[in-house]
Amino acid sequence: MGSDSSPEILFDAVLKAAELHPALSMLVFIPQESSEDFQKKIPSHMHVKCIAVQQEILMEDHPLEAIRRKPLSSLVQGIQYLKDKKIDAFVSAGNTGALIAAATLNIPLLPNIKRPALLITMPAEKGNVSIIDAGGNITCTAEHYVQFAQLGALFQKSIEKTTCPNVGLLNVGIEPLKGHHELRKAYQELQQYVETWRLKKIDLPLNFIGNVEGKDVFCGNVDVVVTDGFTGNILLKSCEGISSLIFKLLRNQLGNSEHFDAIEKLFDHAESPGGLLCGLERIVVKCHGNVTPRSMLSGISGAVHFIQQNLIERMKAHFSLFS
Amino acid sequence: MGSDSSPEILFDAVLKAAELHPALSMLVFIPQESSEDFQKKIPSHMHVKCIAVQQEILMEDHPLEAIRRKPLSSLVQGIQYLKDKKIDAFVSAGNTGALIAAATLNIPLLPNIKRPALLITMPAEKGNVSIIDAGGNITCTAEHYVQFAQLGALFQKSIEKTTCPNVGLLNVGIEPLKGHHELRKAYQELQQYVETWRLKKIDLPLNFIGNVEGKDVFCGNVDVVVTDGFTGNILLKSCEGISSLIFKLLRNQLGNSEHFDAIEKLFDHAESPGGLLCGLERIVVKCHGNVTPRSMLSGISGAVHFIQQNLIERMKAHFSLFS
Repeated sequence: MGSDSSPEILFDAVLKAAELHPALSMLVFIPQESSEDFQKKIPSHMHVKCIAVQQEILMEDHPLEAIRRKPLSSLVQGIQYLKDKKIDAFVSAGNTGALIAAATLNIPLLPNIKRPALLITMPAEKGNVSIIDAGGNITCTAEHYVQFAQLGALFQKSIEKTTCPNVGLLNVGIEPLKGHHELRKAYQELQQYVETWRLKKIDLPLNFIGNVEGKDVFCGNVDVVVTDGFTGNILLKSCEGISSLIFKLLRNQLGNSEHFDAIEKLFDHAESPGGLLCGLERIVVKCHGNVTPRSMLSGISGAVHFIQQNLIERMKAHFSLFS
Repeated sequence: MGSDSSPEILFDAVLKAAELHPALSMLVFIPQESSEDFQKKIPSHMHVKCIAVQQEILMEDHPLEAIRRKPLSSLVQGIQYLKDKKIDAFVSAGNTGALIAAATLNIPLLPNIKRPALLITMPAEKGNVSIIDAGGNITCTAEHYVQFAQLGALFQKSIEKTTCPNVGLLNVGIEPLKGHHELRKAYQELQQYVETWRLKKIDLPLNFIGNVEGKDVFCGNVDVVVTDGFTGNILLKSCEGISSLIFKLLRNQLGNSEHFDAIEKLFDHAESPGGLLCGLERIVVKCHGNVTPRSMLSGISGAVHFIQQNLIERMKAHFSLFS
């Protein structure tokens, strides 16, 4: 577990996570100057150990330069521990680009996958919808979109237990010729992919429902929304923005009401399990939004859930049926 | 006024608009087969006249092909009437691409503007925020982004009466190097543009606040959000989707409550004045979302408001100060 955010934010989240998950062992990659202080504050019954790191990757750092120049940062160290199987999952609130770069260069990818992508889940009318990519890859080729569709479907089968997930390609209209060239190509390739499966007359790995528009994301008819990391990030964050405004206005109008507290919680990014760096043979979770103790705790709990659900093994097992 | 949607939807909206705005004269471009029937149903005190059209542009039609092959459609006819100044504004719920193509080819553009862009307004923490482009141009160059920034600022000054609008570039992070090449270039060019103005030591036409993320769109610190039509369309429609889900869940939980009816209305796309095709020397309004009598009525009312506010003349006057 690591982060490049203020150590105080970690303190609180790590202690709460240790309380919530008593069987959990945590390594905290933490700046040298805070490391000793923090270690002293950890109650002896908790399995939490601090590992002092000497460098820090900043949000404005260029991803590839940062991981090359700062091998002693929490981010690079955490990925190294994961690579060496010293930890089962790595949770970070650091520079997304650097996290993806470090993971891509060090962690094995799932079979036939070229790039990991950030997968996040959001509440929809029936269960959760997965958005992939939600911020990993700014531009994508048709091939990437097809792989994201497969990864999203695998995740949805493994975690949300959806038998044959409905996968849609996020676009500005439902017609196959909408959007830019790579999206149109991805539409055709996904159609062919599913058609090939149909001819095999065995269970389909996913059901490609064609293009979906922004308004369709939350309607419950689509389980996996495939997009590039630029669009996915804008979708995710603008939805956070508008839902936070709606609940603020409601609170001003109606005062505090436990009746809508539960609904607000559904849409609160700090309650989400964070983004999964999907496509890797290890669990890497990117903490959601502006990191707070609550969102960091949700990220840790998300990682614990993915471990308990045996996510990677399930995805690999499904994958062997896919190809 | 024209639309390629079912004439029944027009019937209701046009009659309501005529009631709401008694001084308004409307021409309805309507399929020949419905034209006579409709004309008979219009009360004699209303200034509404039907114009029969012989062709129909479909949603799946290729924009440029459609306007060339279907010169007798409501869309092409409406733009022609607008070009000839037989009408002051044209409202359509038809094929967006075809509408933009027909407008670009026929209606003069504002000074130094190369392409019109769809501008929509959404509620934010303080007043309304304008999103431009919300669906016109799938890909944009740095030059387009800069022009959209100017158009958005002009609109915001003219309609929302914002003195020096805060303009942000929609991106996946606030750092100047985030996003793709054209966005990074647009960031620099907008900075230079504002700097040039600062040196003149007169009132700035706009205040470039740098990159904004999706979560910042509704926070009230930004008046104009500049983006390409692909991203803008996804932002707009996914926000519609999530707000409609939130209010559905609230209604299930709390029952009908007039306390949140007013807030729901704020976020209901059918209540919005529709998208303005911004950058033209005439008023073209694209009706919002799935066209319903209510959203068509909002579109007509939006056009009336823009005429009453003398939008085009105001924008032109501001423009002469801008360049």
